[in-house]
Amino acid sequence: MDIIKFKPIGYVKSPHKKREGSPIQPNGAKEYEGYIEIKKELIEGLRDLEAFSHIIVIYHLHEVHDVKLVCRPFMDDVEHGIFAIRGPNRPNPIGLSIVPLKCIEDNKVWIKNIDMLDGSPVLDIKPYVVDFDSYPNATKGWLEHNVHKKSYNEADDRFLK
Amino acid sequence: MDIIKFKPIGYVKSPHKKREGSPIQPNGAKEYEGYIEIKKELIEGLRDLEAFSHIIVIYHLHEVHDVKLVCRPFMDDVEHGIFAIRGPNRPNPIGLSIVPLKCIEDNKVWIKNIDMLDGSPVLDIKPYVVDFDSYPNATKGWLEHNVHKKSYNEADDRFLK
Repeated sequence: MDIIKFKPIGYVKSPHKKREGSPIQPNGAKEYEGYIEIKKELIEGLRDLEAFSHIIVIYHLHEVHDVKLVCRPFMDDVEHGIFAIRGPNRPNPIGLSIVPLKCIEDNKVWIKNIDMLDGSPVLDIKPYVVDFDSYPNATKGWLEHNVHKKSYNEADDRFLK
Repeated sequence: MDIIKFKPIGYVKSPHKKREGSPIQPNGAKEYEGYIEIKKELIEGLRDLEAFSHIIVIYHLHEVHDVKLVCRPFMDDVEHGIFAIRGPNRPNPIGLSIVPLKCIEDNKVWIKNIDMLDGSPVLDIKPYVVDFDSYPNATKGWLEHNVHKKSYNEADDRFLK
């Protein structure tokens, strides 16, 4: 069995200290800011990142310890496969958030709309490139009629049970 | 030191057998199709994915073994930090491709515009959701004047030296 090993490039500093009540996606987190503290020895890797308005953050959902191949996401009342939802109980608990970049100060990458938990280990940062990443006409499956439901913007405890 | 361990959820079957000459991004790979072969025991996780037109594939750049914190990307002639480019020599060699989903047959997730190398271990699949992932007005830093350079669509050997 292949085992793939990664080391964090840094850690998230966020106002969200626990999963319950945290925003489920960046667009439900517009009032929150925080930063990624990059390891000092990797600072060179940030050169020229600040000119991008958005970044892709790939991180470890470090508080997730169980896998649910089928579950009910925050934004629906029926179950879907884990690869068809953005929930945390994935075979590999990897989080992906596309967020506005506010500024970079030394080894701190300040971001807006932060939906990550405090202390999340960050695996990678990539620049968001419209030509590669923006598909405004993509269809969104079961989310088609649910994505604007305000009441589902915050996590409840369903993944903690 | 934190070590984060993942196991592949499946593997890429792709026409691209080696890095040199492979497309550098899905939009340079429009004529190529392939599939992700998901482990049989994870098939349930694919339920309802097929209704999405695009998926996010997170995978291991398994042929990358050296880190370059600053390097010259395929699409420019000057160096940038590794977190400001999409090149492979990252501290954690994680690839991210947003691709059109063609269909799902049993445990095979057929995708279009495939830019991944054959045999790449896949770490996660997420549905692409316009509301979370599409920012058509994002600015793209050093790529602003380079992203349409046709001649940079295919990888050369610069990351192999």
